[in-house]
Amino acid sequence: MSNPTDLKQIESRIVSFVEDFACLHTDGESDAVAGQCKRLADAVAAQAVTSSEGGKRLRALLTLEAFRAFASSEDIERHIDEVFGLACAIEVFQTGALVHDDIIDDSDLRRGKPSAHRALAAQSGNDAIGRGLGIMLGDMLATSSVDIVNRSVVGLDRGPDIISAFLNMHREVEIGQVLDLAVELSPLNDPDELARTSLNVFRWKTASYTTIAPLEFGMLAAGETKRTARERALAIGLPLGLAFQLADDLLDVIGSSRNTGKPIGGDIREGKRTVLLADALNAASTEEKAELVGMWESPVRSEEQVSRAIALFESTGAIETSYDRIARLWAESEAAIQSLRLPAEWENALVEACARFVPTVRREQ
Amino acid sequence: MSNPTDLKQIESRIVSFVEDFACLHTDGESDAVAGQCKRLADAVAAQAVTSSEGGKRLRALLTLEAFRAFASSEDIERHIDEVFGLACAIEVFQTGALVHDDIIDDSDLRRGKPSAHRALAAQSGNDAIGRGLGIMLGDMLATSSVDIVNRSVVGLDRGPDIISAFLNMHREVEIGQVLDLAVELSPLNDPDELARTSLNVFRWKTASYTTIAPLEFGMLAAGETKRTARERALAIGLPLGLAFQLADDLLDVIGSSRNTGKPIGGDIREGKRTVLLADALNAASTEEKAELVGMWESPVRSEEQVSRAIALFESTGAIETSYDRIARLWAESEAAIQSLRLPAEWENALVEACARFVPTVRREQ
Repeated sequence: MSNPTDLKQIESRIVSFVEDFACLHTDGESDAVAGQCKRLADAVAAQAVTSSEGGKRLRALLTLEAFRAFASSEDIERHIDEVFGLACAIEVFQTGALVHDDIIDDSDLRRGKPSAHRALAAQSGNDAIGRGLGIMLGDMLATSSVDIVNRSVVGLDRGPDIISAFLNMHREVEIGQVLDLAVELSPLNDPDELARTSLNVFRWKTASYTTIAPLEFGMLAAGETKRTARERALAIGLPLGLAFQLADDLLDVIGSSRNTGKPIGGDIREGKRTVLLADALNAASTEEKAELVGMWESPVRSEEQVSRAIALFESTGAIETSYDRIARLWAESEAAIQSLRLPAEWENALVEACARFVPTVRREQ
Repeated sequence: MSNPTDLKQIESRIVSFVEDFACLHTDGESDAVAGQCKRLADAVAAQAVTSSEGGKRLRALLTLEAFRAFASSEDIERHIDEVFGLACAIEVFQTGALVHDDIIDDSDLRRGKPSAHRALAAQSGNDAIGRGLGIMLGDMLATSSVDIVNRSVVGLDRGPDIISAFLNMHREVEIGQVLDLAVELSPLNDPDELARTSLNVFRWKTASYTTIAPLEFGMLAAGETKRTARERALAIGLPLGLAFQLADDLLDVIGSSRNTGKPIGGDIREGKRTVLLADALNAASTEEKAELVGMWESPVRSEEQVSRAIALFESTGAIETSYDRIARLWAESEAAIQSLRLPAEWENALVEACARFVPTVRREQ
């Protein structure tokens, strides 16, 4: 259960899965593709690998820990290879989803490097073609993720259930992205509704694949029934996934002692409708509320406005409310783990794997 | 083997698969989504159904005919239900691919109705959100197509092989779309190379899912081995799929006695680099060649230029060359069917199903 070893295995497997899938093999079934076409197809394959690099692999690690916590030592030995496949598949799925997400948000950067569609636009010398290639790259990574699962479950008893759970995860994230776009059109005059809606969106677009699915796959691979795996994955993973997204949004505003490589206030600059905004609107005076609504209804926000919004998030207590929300949700997730009465060794390992999703964001005072 | 009955079944199953997948069920696992979010999620689900309507279902029908040609009458009775699932899955996959294709090409119309992203832009009142929702809708339909296959293969012996073949089809089309974008950047100074490259792109972006995959799925469902199914599907489906795309490109230029609902010369207007263009460049005089290259290198083409290009396609013999190419490919496909020495009834049915992909485009003279 050594994480550096797990991480190294995950990294090298992801690269080989993705390369194998995205490369244009000449298999004798068809003529070789030449010239400009070959060059651009190779660029897309190379970008598939580049986009796959640099993740923290939290989801893959949780899949492995969930499997180890629930499987017999015999099954761990026999099936760990397949579970590494499932762990990689979630990461590959996420990479594909982020490629599409960056096109939707028109983002320049991802993990400190040019986003995939920007990199491909630079390579092709054409923005529209770069975007088109990015849409296809996202599609390829999504297909590849299912292909990895399909190959990995061959030796597992619950193979068809795992494929089905994996496709359900795809579906939930896709619906979550639709809801996330819809939130941007919600009115700002009902902060309670906005907070409720935003948390619900987190369940679909984040918790689904970040925490619920890794737990579910680990348990299914360990031989738990479909129903038990789902129930337990939801009990632990739903509050954990919501806490993760709240913590992520909070870090965007308060920054981090560790360098995340992101400028502070990115969500505010983009005018995203977050739970933090809803909590601030809820606690704000009439004047402050009007000020916030004015900022968010404007097409852009200046750097002064970003600073002012952060100050209001602080002074209205919205930031403190988020800390409280996160603490409450994490306690709920931890209690769900403890209620399973796993052997201490595995309970600790699982709690540790889950705790990584909720970095200590409570301020040193 | 009554087509109207098959078609009716295919239509109603597609609608129920897609609705079931795209609708936001409130399953007790999470709060209901309300307000603006619910409205837009419902709009995406409704668009999933709208986008699924109006196809000719050639691919689904070929899947059914291939199964019937190769399966025992016992297996036909026992498994026709599962094969209807596979037949629908290819159609759902295609719908998703077309949704992404229309975003890439920025097309306004599809099957005579607004393209999905345009319809969703109108509903949300925002072009960027419409495009984002379109990308997600395409992703949802792709996921749904695999989900349909995963559900359908439960009772079939070659289930894992069918899932794997289905994912390989996804992959080939995705690579094909990448190559199709790359062709648009190819130089026009080597027409032989352009013709070769374009035909190769057809193999990936069209033949893969139009003819090869339906034949392969039908044969796998009938119990053929993976290798035999693949070899036969390629022998029949590769030339057939190329002929289909050539006929489609030809119809774009010469029009059709039946009303296809498309204006003539669409590909030329868009400046697409087709086999027709390559054949015309190859046979053109130096002056005509310069004229064609000039048109295609310009960002737009006037209606007069479209007519002039069609006239040049005619006078250089490019149109006649395409007729010849189609006839040769169709003969190759038909010979591959005949070499299997199927019972006459099934051979005829399979030839008929394949012939639908090559409508009689030879001119009445």
